Amino acid sequence: MSTPSPQRARSAAAKQQRERAILDAARSLGAERSVREVTLTDIAAAVGMHKSAMLRYFETREQIFLALTAEGWEDWSAALRARLKEFGDVTEAGGGDRGTIAAVIAQSLVARPFFCDLLAQAPLNLERNVSMESVYAFKTVVLGEVAAVAAELCRLLAITERAAVDVIATATSMAGALLQMAAPGTRLRTLYETRPELAHALVDVEPQLTRILTALLNGMPSTER
Amino acid sequence: MSTPSPQRARSAAAKQQRERAILDAARSLGAERSVREVTLTDIAAAVGMHKSAMLRYFETREQIFLALTAEGWEDWSAALRARLKEFGDVTEAGGGDRGTIAAVIAQSLVARPFFCDLLAQAPLNLERNVSMESVYAFKTVVLGEVAAVAAELCRLLAITERAAVDVIATATSMAGALLQMAAPGTRLRTLYETRPELAHALVDVEPQLTRILTALLNGMPSTER
Repeated sequence: MSTPSPQRARSAAAKQQRERAILDAARSLGAERSVREVTLTDIAAAVGMHKSAMLRYFETREQIFLALTAEGWEDWSAALRARLKEFGDVTEAGGGDRGTIAAVIAQSLVARPFFCDLLAQAPLNLERNVSMESVYAFKTVVLGEVAAVAAELCRLLAITERAAVDVIATATSMAGALLQMAAPGTRLRTLYETRPELAHALVDVEPQLTRILTALLNGMPSTER
Repeated sequence: MSTPSPQRARSAAAKQQRERAILDAARSLGAERSVREVTLTDIAAAVGMHKSAMLRYFETREQIFLALTAEGWEDWSAALRARLKEFGDVTEAGGGDRGTIAAVIAQSLVARPFFCDLLAQAPLNLERNVSMESVYAFKTVVLGEVAAVAAELCRLLAITERAAVDVIATATSMAGALLQMAAPGTRLRTLYETRPELAHALVDVEPQLTRILTALLNGMPSTER
């Protein structure tokens, strides 16, 4: 194999830089408003490119956000696994700590509202308007991170891998769904807050997610019992 | 108060008939494809009306589907409560039947794929493009049905009302999310089925939802213990 010419390498580096700038702009806009409200035109304006030029780097707005969802999985998975490693094995920690683990998982998601927004958008909207190659690349990242987090949960809680995957699916899907229902900063939220008869529609994400994950973990049979 | 004139009553009945025809057309199209893919133009064509004429009955396509989501809640709630009434009280049934109750809840949702599609779409897309009056009417129906199902679950399982509401939130949100991930009949599903390395992305909704709800119910403290 021949080494790439210096010119080629420079152009590849420039392409990578452009892609990074686009992703960063989409992240800022999505975190500021919500993913739903960010158009391709908004991203192009923020990065100072023409929309048609941007399409040389990404197929669609959905591909941009799907790439950010993959990065979100990598970031969340690494942070959560680092926190979980601080806990001892199940043999040391015992079953009583499942509530603590549930709270740690809930916190790790609630601390990442942009990722939770992407988690809700991905299966409904993002995966549906990209090429099969993009979905393949995305799913490969997600499955890898799910397996890594699952391994940590199996070690800590002595549950089967399938149970650990169920925990991750519930944690990430419910974090996405509850945040959408909570709808912070929207007219919807104001409606729930001002009409006492809608008080039950007011979702407080972290305590509810913690309660749900605590019950889920407590109800999973231990492989060691 | 004066009685409405016969002419008025006829025109109100005609309006109701038109609304029903629009809702039925939207339901047929949404069940056939998926909610995401049905436009206002499609519904207008199916019902034989001009799009602008249809907007005299509904504000947006989202309002049409939000009205169908409310009907979906009423239908699901009634069917599930009828099934749950067949079970005895917790004092007769004992804690061992929580797995059966979980399976009944999962089945009741999986049997309603169109409702599950709406459940996933409602907080993300449907509630965001309608008037506050429409959201208010929708939420009022949903909160009423949640309370009715929760009362049945409290009686059966001897759990708190808050725990019952957590069960309903998890069941309905996860049914919506898992069905989106399963993506039956789509190119995505074909991708997962044909690439062995993506086998873990293949979601089988009913067994996974049943496992999650079984663990969740088993992990909820009984108020009678």
